[in-house]
Amino acid sequence: MESKYMQRALELAEKGVGFVNPNPLVGAVIVKNNKMIGEGFHAVYGGPHAEINAFKDAAFKNNAEAVKGATLYVTLEPCSHYGKTPPCAHAIVERGIGKVVVAMEDPNPEVAGRGIDILRQHGIEVVTGVLEQESRQQNEIFLKYITTNLPFCILKTAMTLDGKTATQSGDSKWITSEGARAYVHQVRHRVAGIMVGIGTIIQDDPLLNTRLEEGGGSDPIRIIADSHAKIPLESKVLNISSKAQTIIVTTEFAEKEKLKKLKDKGAEIIVTPLINKGVDLKYLMKKLGERKIDSVLLEGGSTLNYSALEARIIDKINIFIAPKLIGGREAKTPIGGVGKMLMKDAVSVKDINIRSFEPDMMIEGYLRREE
Amino acid sequence: MESKYMQRALELAEKGVGFVNPNPLVGAVIVKNNKMIGEGFHAVYGGPHAEINAFKDAAFKNNAEAVKGATLYVTLEPCSHYGKTPPCAHAIVERGIGKVVVAMEDPNPEVAGRGIDILRQHGIEVVTGVLEQESRQQNEIFLKYITTNLPFCILKTAMTLDGKTATQSGDSKWITSEGARAYVHQVRHRVAGIMVGIGTIIQDDPLLNTRLEEGGGSDPIRIIADSHAKIPLESKVLNISSKAQTIIVTTEFAEKEKLKKLKDKGAEIIVTPLINKGVDLKYLMKKLGERKIDSVLLEGGSTLNYSALEARIIDKINIFIAPKLIGGREAKTPIGGVGKMLMKDAVSVKDINIRSFEPDMMIEGYLRREE
Repeated sequence: MESKYMQRALELAEKGVGFVNPNPLVGAVIVKNNKMIGEGFHAVYGGPHAEINAFKDAAFKNNAEAVKGATLYVTLEPCSHYGKTPPCAHAIVERGIGKVVVAMEDPNPEVAGRGIDILRQHGIEVVTGVLEQESRQQNEIFLKYITTNLPFCILKTAMTLDGKTATQSGDSKWITSEGARAYVHQVRHRVAGIMVGIGTIIQDDPLLNTRLEEGGGSDPIRIIADSHAKIPLESKVLNISSKAQTIIVTTEFAEKEKLKKLKDKGAEIIVTPLINKGVDLKYLMKKLGERKIDSVLLEGGSTLNYSALEARIIDKINIFIAPKLIGGREAKTPIGGVGKMLMKDAVSVKDINIRSFEPDMMIEGYLRREE
Repeated sequence: MESKYMQRALELAEKGVGFVNPNPLVGAVIVKNNKMIGEGFHAVYGGPHAEINAFKDAAFKNNAEAVKGATLYVTLEPCSHYGKTPPCAHAIVERGIGKVVVAMEDPNPEVAGRGIDILRQHGIEVVTGVLEQESRQQNEIFLKYITTNLPFCILKTAMTLDGKTATQSGDSKWITSEGARAYVHQVRHRVAGIMVGIGTIIQDDPLLNTRLEEGGGSDPIRIIADSHAKIPLESKVLNISSKAQTIIVTTEFAEKEKLKKLKDKGAEIIVTPLINKGVDLKYLMKKLGERKIDSVLLEGGSTLNYSALEARIIDKINIFIAPKLIGGREAKTPIGGVGKMLMKDAVSVKDINIRSFEPDMMIEGYLRREE
């Protein structure tokens, strides 16, 4: 029973995808006499939290007194701190809620159990851990970001069954089916930033925006790794109409004059130290975190992907595999660069999950860093 | 009920794996009054067919008269022709079997419904198509071979999640786990031949034999594509103690003197016409078919694999994927060669099935040739 209501709360939380970063996704359901009398979710960054929206909904559908003695199901521990809004734990006490069921504690160092403590101090029964696994999965971006201040980085690539991301002549249109490509736009909607290298800009001149079938997508901030600032001024990412910014990540190799022109185009410039004659991705991640970018979808070519692997910034992979064979000694693969020397130095991918995007497959998994 | 007995017949058939090629795998169960009173399978090439073994079993466990009026479940249509043994259809009539349930018709042009006709002409009720799909799957090698006289060719490879079969330095020990490698030995046991290129012989000097955990494996005939007959005389495949032969497949480029030395070592030589300065794999498949080699496991390197793809000899793929990332622009991939120019020319893989060999995956699928 508890998991049924929590399941609904998780569904509600999902509606905030793309609009709440770097806040967590949160959903809440209020139940009285086995009836859902109100529900809410965190809908937009800076806006009311899920609990407050659920209270409003319950008051609107019933009356202001309805929530007295009711049970609140919420996917994340109610907050205890003054952020953009007052603490939800106090609001819950004030409304007279009798019991709170929480999927997971808030790993935010400013909360970390204090929300639950406040509730219990006021005599409210608190149950935790209901659908915790699902909740942690839903908020994997938030979990990484709030505890490290670094973006959660997802490497996305698409290859043939024989490991190629393009034919030897560079043709990659299309490896995967429409369904798989539509899913990638859902991920773009979910994340705060998207990153490619200058090679991809020159080869494909992509838009890097979010094109959801149903519309209404949120564009990620475009991040271009371009150590020499070679990006053509007519590139689509510098001329697109989008609420999201374009950031050019470069190094001392870039010409001042070119950087000025890029700024005039509205681009932001981040200059990183040099690593292997290229941008320092670890440094970049710190800078992006400081800008409240909680997540980056890496849609790099094989060179950038290898730099990311070596810099250990990748948290998750989304590898689409199309059931096709093309061959080609010279054809590119998802991860290039120098490469590891020995199989024993391979980077392991854990918690593998396989999803179907007929006729393609997508292999999802996590990189555990031992740093 | 029918499918339960047929399921048992399929299990029995499986016991013939590795020993009956190029014959089909066949299992039979005799049922009377809802009791299995006898069972048998085709155990060895040239030996009795499944039906005859089931009759013997029933007579031994009961008496010679027991099968009168009983129902025979058999995974393949009983034969109607004199091969190494007399026709089973006649034996079934003589024993007084009342009903025969068949999974699939025998595609062998010498049978092709005639076995069933004989039964019906003698008043025996015949039901067909019970677990037909499973039976066709089990005999996929036989189905191809009996209708084309060409071996069923399975391409097996193992790669990392980023599409590499080895690191850039050539290290490939090991990509997959023990469980995955053990399965490959089961496939080696099942097939009549195994093929690699000279590159693999020089790089790895493999045994190419069958090493089953439980022992008792049947070694496939070793087939080495070696256009210039460069194989070192001390190679393991030329010195292994095995019931199966080693065949060196070469071209006019080979030195006569070297071929003589190889023959002295016990190897057989097949000289094919030249195709792209290498062996003609299509021609080779015909020659192997004439030698009653009904199946070939292709464990080639990327060059041979591409030649096989281009020659359209591949029927099935077994691609193991290990959840590891190694990177490497220069690292080898499962299929190399020149490669296709355009994605639209990619070869499609159909009927995909994903199997788990923790922590590895294996993607199984079929190539449909339009010739």
